[in-house]
Amino acid sequence: MKQIEHIGVAVKDLDVSCSLYEKLLGTSCYKKEEVKSEGVNTAFFKTGVNKIELLAATSQDSPIAKFLERKGEGIHHIAFEVDNIELEMKRLKHEGFVLLNELPKQGADNKLVCFVHPKGTNGVLVELCQEKI
Amino acid sequence: MKQIEHIGVAVKDLDVSCSLYEKLLGTSCYKKEEVKSEGVNTAFFKTGVNKIELLAATSQDSPIAKFLERKGEGIHHIAFEVDNIELEMKRLKHEGFVLLNELPKQGADNKLVCFVHPKGTNGVLVELCQEKI
Repeated sequence: MKQIEHIGVAVKDLDVSCSLYEKLLGTSCYKKEEVKSEGVNTAFFKTGVNKIELLAATSQDSPIAKFLERKGEGIHHIAFEVDNIELEMKRLKHEGFVLLNELPKQGADNKLVCFVHPKGTNGVLVELCQEKI
Repeated sequence: MKQIEHIGVAVKDLDVSCSLYEKLLGTSCYKKEEVKSEGVNTAFFKTGVNKIELLAATSQDSPIAKFLERKGEGIHHIAFEVDNIELEMKRLKHEGFVLLNELPKQGADNKLVCFVHPKGTNGVLVELCQEKI
């Protein structure tokens, strides 16, 4: 794990939360992007070397819709940047962590991603992400 | 807000979670510290320029004990580094955010801290922190 790449925050209304986070962070949203495969609309803010990613559901099947239903709005995941996602997935499996996808998949922001099951990480949903070349 | 300083994770057993996070992050805990005023024991890990702070309650009155009871283990807060905490508190109040303490207070890791009420930030408990000189 090189460093935190971003923190994902689940929200109900992306536009309302975008305005709110612009005030909170004192910086403008620099990118909005839909990730159809995950059923989410995202909005990104830069804060130092890290990013805050707001996530809103685009369908009821979206993991974000389910999260909002169970837990309400709030921090959804921590994403760590890795150089080689397949090597890091292998290392974590070897350490006993459970991966939510067996192969890296397409995430937002030109990344390959893999999620680690929060049951094995004290309730924290961890995302590994590697920039696609 | 300059950048994310650390992510706080509420855990039940600090020693057990320390071992777990050493495996997860691939790095050793570099500091443990008790913050008596908050009723917590903390353990820190470096990940790039940011830190992960594990938090365990030392008493039933601790905010962490109450968090664990309500929500279980998981991400507790995002802390942002600021240059001047009083100016940032003033700015956020002016923007309509509700602060949980009216004056900066002593936090872990030689910091002055202030928390922003999660009801105004989409459920995210935000900490401002300024390094004490």
